[in-house]
Amino acid sequence: MANDSNSLLDQLVESLTCLPGVGVKTAQRMAYHLLERDRPRGRKLAAVLAQALENIRHCARCRNFTEHELCKICADANREAHQLCVVENPVEVRLLEANTDFRGRYFVLMGRLSPLDGVGPEELGLPQLEARLQAESVDELILAIGSTVEGDVTAHVLSEMAARHNVRVTRLAQGVPAGGELEYLDSMTLMTAFEGRTEYH
Amino acid sequence: MANDSNSLLDQLVESLTCLPGVGVKTAQRMAYHLLERDRPRGRKLAAVLAQALENIRHCARCRNFTEHELCKICADANREAHQLCVVENPVEVRLLEANTDFRGRYFVLMGRLSPLDGVGPEELGLPQLEARLQAESVDELILAIGSTVEGDVTAHVLSEMAARHNVRVTRLAQGVPAGGELEYLDSMTLMTAFEGRTEYH
Repeated sequence: MANDSNSLLDQLVESLTCLPGVGVKTAQRMAYHLLERDRPRGRKLAAVLAQALENIRHCARCRNFTEHELCKICADANREAHQLCVVENPVEVRLLEANTDFRGRYFVLMGRLSPLDGVGPEELGLPQLEARLQAESVDELILAIGSTVEGDVTAHVLSEMAARHNVRVTRLAQGVPAGGELEYLDSMTLMTAFEGRTEYH
Repeated sequence: MANDSNSLLDQLVESLTCLPGVGVKTAQRMAYHLLERDRPRGRKLAAVLAQALENIRHCARCRNFTEHELCKICADANREAHQLCVVENPVEVRLLEANTDFRGRYFVLMGRLSPLDGVGPEELGLPQLEARLQAESVDELILAIGSTVEGDVTAHVLSEMAARHNVRVTRLAQGVPAGGELEYLDSMTLMTAFEGRTEYH
């Protein structure tokens, strides 16, 4: 037998392909890199990964990732309760926190409605969100949801839910992105931006 | 404080950036993927990575990666000792084993000469290779080394070493790649292929 079949190296390469976007060739390159040039950081990665998978769970209130019962934002009594911002993924919480002065609370869907992929209201925690609309003093539900087909469907379902509880719904403005030149915009964006034109001060 | 700073999630993202070609955004995507969709394989990766970094070392004879004193190929008494194939990296051993009927032995440089990057003869194990040329009955040193500037320098140094031990040196044929159309070849490849033309049977 010429190759170390099922060797630790093969197992490492195979295991690395569980990372999104990583095929066998990239996994080989990663394995060789860690073994040859960066064992200390590789060991750190192994330890942190094991620890993170063991301890990180969903915040009981907003479903964001956290290693505690409640995430830092939900546990912070100074955040305003009357604005609730719904996002698809934890990364958007991070982006909004870094780039806006929003001081309300979040709800993380962890996806968007896609019945064909088995992602329905339950998977996105919509019953949990509805319970919050019922129990908390929310007066604005902000939909920070991408402008895709599935995002639009999700936004529609959420707006109907909010209507049942007499909560005002807003959605992030859609239009020309900063630095965007009109001639390079797709026609849908151009149309939306034109229809949604606002008073110029 | 709005964000879980230095949270396990942040540490995981930071640790994942030790992988080659992985920046912060990709690391975030990987972390979310493992946490949300693939915890079992993530745990497996953590365990295999720790184990591999602990146990994989260099074969005492050929420098390839192995978890034993000698790799499978060096430990195989049926491999012929008179042909020694020098490659830059472990991945080429794998490729040659899979695609050729070579039955000799290997020596893995783990790089190529690049004095500016601090990679000299010692780093590539050339003294160890020379000891093998001295001690073993090698009569052909096959240079399976890429045709780059540094590869050419490395090949030159190796051929001089072989000459000192009266060992014949060969290098992989250079020319038109399989399926290659002449009009798309770079001029260096075309020139090399033309000069190296062989009898047509």
